[in-house]
Amino acid sequence: MIEIERKYLVTSDAYKQEAHAQHFIAQGYLNSNPERTVRVRIKNQKGYLTIKGMSSATGASRFEWEHEIPLEEAKVLLTLCESGTIEKTRYEVTSGTHCIEIDEFHGENSGLILAEIELQDENETIQKPSWLGKEVTQEAKYYNAYLSAHPFRSW
Amino acid sequence: MIEIERKYLVTSDAYKQEAHAQHFIAQGYLNSNPERTVRVRIKNQKGYLTIKGMSSATGASRFEWEHEIPLEEAKVLLTLCESGTIEKTRYEVTSGTHCIEIDEFHGENSGLILAEIELQDENETIQKPSWLGKEVTQEAKYYNAYLSAHPFRSW
Repeated sequence: MIEIERKYLVTSDAYKQEAHAQHFIAQGYLNSNPERTVRVRIKNQKGYLTIKGMSSATGASRFEWEHEIPLEEAKVLLTLCESGTIEKTRYEVTSGTHCIEIDEFHGENSGLILAEIELQDENETIQKPSWLGKEVTQEAKYYNAYLSAHPFRSW
Repeated sequence: MIEIERKYLVTSDAYKQEAHAQHFIAQGYLNSNPERTVRVRIKNQKGYLTIKGMSSATGASRFEWEHEIPLEEAKVLLTLCESGTIEKTRYEVTSGTHCIEIDEFHGENSGLILAEIELQDENETIQKPSWLGKEVTQEAKYYNAYLSAHPFRSW
């Protein structure tokens, strides 16, 4: 499938009061190349393997393939990943008809908070909460695969 | 799981008379790095995603994870792979208690024929058919991931 999403910096922690869900995520990369990203993720004690292709020119559309895999297999696959496991807490907030996912990063990426909104169409209008800052959809340095090798605290 | 196998060059096509099965295989790599190889394979119209880790010091043992995936998804994932799809016909021959897989490569790797024997134990004895040549288990240039980027006809 093709995933369309916009990414933003987050300017305050006010989203925490609006969140209806919270998940802990650990993930690593079997390939962090944006042309063929292969990600191993553990989210709420479930394993996932995700493959993403190159982004469109606008940066908002990207091919994405994802399958759930057994947790124990995900744990073993994480040990094969490139160095730089990402750990983050994901909050979910509803805004209009959209679900906004806010990732609060930990460890070497702590201090960074990113919000992502998944869209049906690249030109869809978004109702922006006050804590949503600058759009960074096209900035490759905010890709988790990039953050894995070049963590926020080293910027 | 850990896969233990020995790899050999093949010196004649006499194996074809002994083969009890024959499959066409097309495969590409989402990562050809031997530390975390990610392979997409289509074999007999079925899709597979396989992840392999680094080999042991002897080259015979290697972590391997494999899941079957829908054929249509495998076809799309092949388009994301690094350049250099590998196409080969695999013959299966029984020798003593072992199954020997013989890969006859096509396209840019034509001229190369490799045999692989999967073992339960690295020190197991093998009954060698006359067409089995030099052992190349430890030679990384015979890895399919290497052949994908550096095909046999360019050697």
